[in-house]
Amino acid sequence: MYAVVRKVSKGIPRADFLIGAVPGAGQVGKLAVDHLIVELRADLVAEIYTPAFPPQIYIQSDGVAYMPRFQIYHARAGSKSALLFTGPAQLENGEASYEIIDSVLEMAKDAGVAEVYSLAAYILGKEPTERLVHGTATRPELLERLRLAGVRTMDGGEINGMNGLIFAMASLKDMDGICLLGETAGYYVDALSSKEVLKSLAKLSGIEVDYSRLDSLAAEAEKAIKAMMEEISKKEEASRDTRPGRMDYIS
Amino acid sequence: MYAVVRKVSKGIPRADFLIGAVPGAGQVGKLAVDHLIVELRADLVAEIYTPAFPPQIYIQSDGVAYMPRFQIYHARAGSKSALLFTGPAQLENGEASYEIIDSVLEMAKDAGVAEVYSLAAYILGKEPTERLVHGTATRPELLERLRLAGVRTMDGGEINGMNGLIFAMASLKDMDGICLLGETAGYYVDALSSKEVLKSLAKLSGIEVDYSRLDSLAAEAEKAIKAMMEEISKKEEASRDTRPGRMDYIS
Amino acid sequence: MYAVVRKVSKGIPRADFLIGAVPGAGQVGKLAVDHLIVELRADLVAEIYTPAFPPQIYIQSDGVAYMPRFQIYHARAGSKSALLFTGPAQLENGEASYEIIDSVLEMAKDAGVAEVYSLAAYILGKEPTERLVHGTATRPELLERLRLAGVRTMDGGEINGMNGLIFAMASLKDMDGICLLGETAGYYVDALSSKEVLKSLAKLSGIEVDYSRLDSLAAEAEKAIKAMMEEISKKEEASRDTRPGRMDYIS
Amino acid sequence: MYAVVRKVSKGIPRADFLIGAVPGAGQVGKLAVDHLIVELRADLVAEIYTPAFPPQIYIQSDGVAYMPRFQIYHARAGSKSALLFTGPAQLENGEASYEIIDSVLEMAKDAGVAEVYSLAAYILGKEPTERLVHGTATRPELLERLRLAGVRTMDGGEINGMNGLIFAMASLKDMDGICLLGETAGYYVDALSSKEVLKSLAKLSGIEVDYSRLDSLAAEAEKAIKAMMEEISKKEEASRDTRPGRMDYIS
Repeated sequence: MYAVVRKVSKGIPRADFLIGAVPGAGQVGKLAVDHLIVELRADLVAEIYTPAFPPQIYIQSDGVAYMPRFQIYHARAGSKSALLFTGPAQLENGEASYEIIDSVLEMAKDAGVAEVYSLAAYILGKEPTERLVHGTATRPELLERLRLAGVRTMDGGEINGMNGLIFAMASLKDMDGICLLGETAGYYVDALSSKEVLKSLAKLSGIEVDYSRLDSLAAEAEKAIKAMMEEISKKEEASRDTRPGRMDYIS
Repeated sequence: MYAVVRKVSKGIPRADFLIGAVPGAGQVGKLAVDHLIVELRADLVAEIYTPAFPPQIYIQSDGVAYMPRFQIYHARAGSKSALLFTGPAQLENGEASYEIIDSVLEMAKDAGVAEVYSLAAYILGKEPTERLVHGTATRPELLERLRLAGVRTMDGGEINGMNGLIFAMASLKDMDGICLLGETAGYYVDALSSKEVLKSLAKLSGIEVDYSRLDSLAAEAEKAIKAMMEEISKKEEASRDTRPGRMDYIS
Repeated sequence: MYAVVRKVSKGIPRADFLIGAVPGAGQVGKLAVDHLIVELRADLVAEIYTPAFPPQIYIQSDGVAYMPRFQIYHARAGSKSALLFTGPAQLENGEASYEIIDSVLEMAKDAGVAEVYSLAAYILGKEPTERLVHGTATRPELLERLRLAGVRTMDGGEINGMNGLIFAMASLKDMDGICLLGETAGYYVDALSSKEVLKSLAKLSGIEVDYSRLDSLAAEAEKAIKAMMEEISKKEEASRDTRPGRMDYIS
Repeated sequence: MYAVVRKVSKGIPRADFLIGAVPGAGQVGKLAVDHLIVELRADLVAEIYTPAFPPQIYIQSDGVAYMPRFQIYHARAGSKSALLFTGPAQLENGEASYEIIDSVLEMAKDAGVAEVYSLAAYILGKEPTERLVHGTATRPELLERLRLAGVRTMDGGEINGMNGLIFAMASLKDMDGICLLGETAGYYVDALSSKEVLKSLAKLSGIEVDYSRLDSLAAEAEKAIKAMMEEISKKEEASRDTRPGRMDYIS
């Protein structure tokens, strides 16, 4: 038993969608789901503890200890509602990954969810120019909807870890599964990619939120990266200046 | 729980045999079962998902995502019927291997199967001349039937992985188990070996199919191998021609 | 199933607290719980065997063989009562660690326990001057009680292994969890640190015992360490005396 | 579930003792149990299959395939009766080891067994002179019986693997557990050590058999070892004779 579900609210409220992500490249999916949780003032409805996390306890800045756990929130957005699934890390244990996602999907099914989204990263390995959103799904009919929403469908490849399982295992419970992958360099936290993914999600699900917090996050990240780059180039210049004109010794 | 069985049809139809193989050397068994599935226009009746596969999702060329899984088909061949078991890969997890096969055999038992065949490779490590079929079984009486069908019985050795478990574990459920192993070099996909195995299976079970598709597959493979060999020998010749007549240095 | 519980007494008597520790740095927690077991003349009420220990049997000096196991004792101290949990070693298997602690907490819950303490070490990596006691808990309200008892609350960090799980998992069963960590160098058994932890525990729980046995233990340890240090410095002096006055060669 | 028990006979007959061993150093215990099975014409009553064995099938010299498994036999010896447990190998998986032994002991308990013996090796690392039998047990009272039977009780050490679990876990089911360990060099199969262990077992349990087959086995082994030693010393002599009197080069 890898999934120990603890319901926080009395019963899980009805929901149209399950939207989930755990940390991955560029934190694209995780940041997007966290943004929805904050912007939609979502309520924590359940926690999932698992012995697949290392036996380790963390102490918060206020002194209280906590155990790592996955969380399921419930949110309303206009006439729509969604369960939001997130967690602190991927699990190394593959079997546990399957079981955690199975229990989340079971909960979603019980709540009336018919469509499951997982949000993830499409790693470019270089600075993206447009931050396109790619997508895949569990049925051909869903791909047409993705294309109409401006999402690029794929013709190969694989998705690793829990972000792949979330939407793909949905089909085993007769729910539709869609995965949206935002283009990102992969080597820095990319709030702009999260924003593009959320914009595609909005077109598909009707769940719309304000993105200004993601914009500020991206601006901050850009500033931090710029400062870091300047620091690096200053150091390189300095090291050029102090380099001896002549090599008197070999170190 | 390593075996998550998902019945695709309503109930598993009655069957005389279970015939199974997962990928192994030369793809001998896998190719043979796949051939039966196509030629007998077999119906998918069940899928077996397992957390023993790495948590990874694959995207097909049409854009649809799928999870790796084992499959069970049902086919009729004249007055005979069979369940056909296959899958995308061996499992690294031994315990899961046992459990998957146990669930397949349970399903076969429920469908009335009394005889279980697994199809596999007999690795020669060199080009085979005759492509004999070797065999082993769970009862001495079955060996006599194998010999009458032209199958060479063995006097030692071991069979690794799920292809061994399929027929050997049959005896734990009071079914007969037979393994047919086709001679093959082991380092290329060998459709001719699959054909020989299927011919032995036909003599034993009465399930006969047309083999021309396997012949074409073998012809294509032969052409591809020949082309590759010529390419290699051309390159070797070319490299001989450009070699300096005199060695001026030692690299 | 990693936890095989064997009740030694008929039923587990009622208790106010669960106090637990398994071996860790400086043996601070383990020594403290062992001290309580002896001083309070606690009764063994249950043992927990687990296949997560290596399959190994130990032979005592009296010739009797035993299996490694966790133990739960029951003790009365004035108007208070407690279950005391201890064991021979941390488990390498994280999943088993969770399961063992879960079964201990279940037993505690059934016995009416409302407050769970785990005793552990706060590693300084150098000789401590004051041997302060640090603490964390599962609710902010508990931290105030800790501060009033002179325990330093923390603002970060992590607690590894079963000593972290004991108190943190208590909250999953609606019990309060408190962890007391005694400052210690970390590289020798530290009975004085255990004493300080027990003094803090006494202020919080009202369970008071005589500490003279821990004082003698500390005095013995100090004597042993001193003797070892003198031995080392003697050897160093001796090696200085026999060192050649002049270096005739470089080795 | 690591233990898949398959009863071969209808019900397990009543028994006074369980006597077990799996392969270990010098095959001392395994050989002893196998000897009892043959000499007492024991009946196979149950088999235990386990996914903890690697997924591998073996082919016998008669062509029949079989799966590795543990076996439980039943034997009568005068007024006494015993279950005899043996298997082809130790399991690498500790958890599975516990579970297999648990299921064997459960079966023994159901059959009325009150005393469990495991037979093992006491490794000397050099040629033994007397081949003493050492012993340990789960209760101090049993040690007195061991001493009266000429068995040397121990004052420390550990017993690894399933041979330790067999007798030690007996106490968890309220049966007595005794382990008899025969002195052996450890680097060759030692039928004489098995004989000594069986002689001690006879004194303790009243189960007596003829040992001449073990004597012949030991004589054969001795002859084989002697022949091997002579071969080695001949080769050494020969290599001395052909060694050049003068070294003309350094290789």
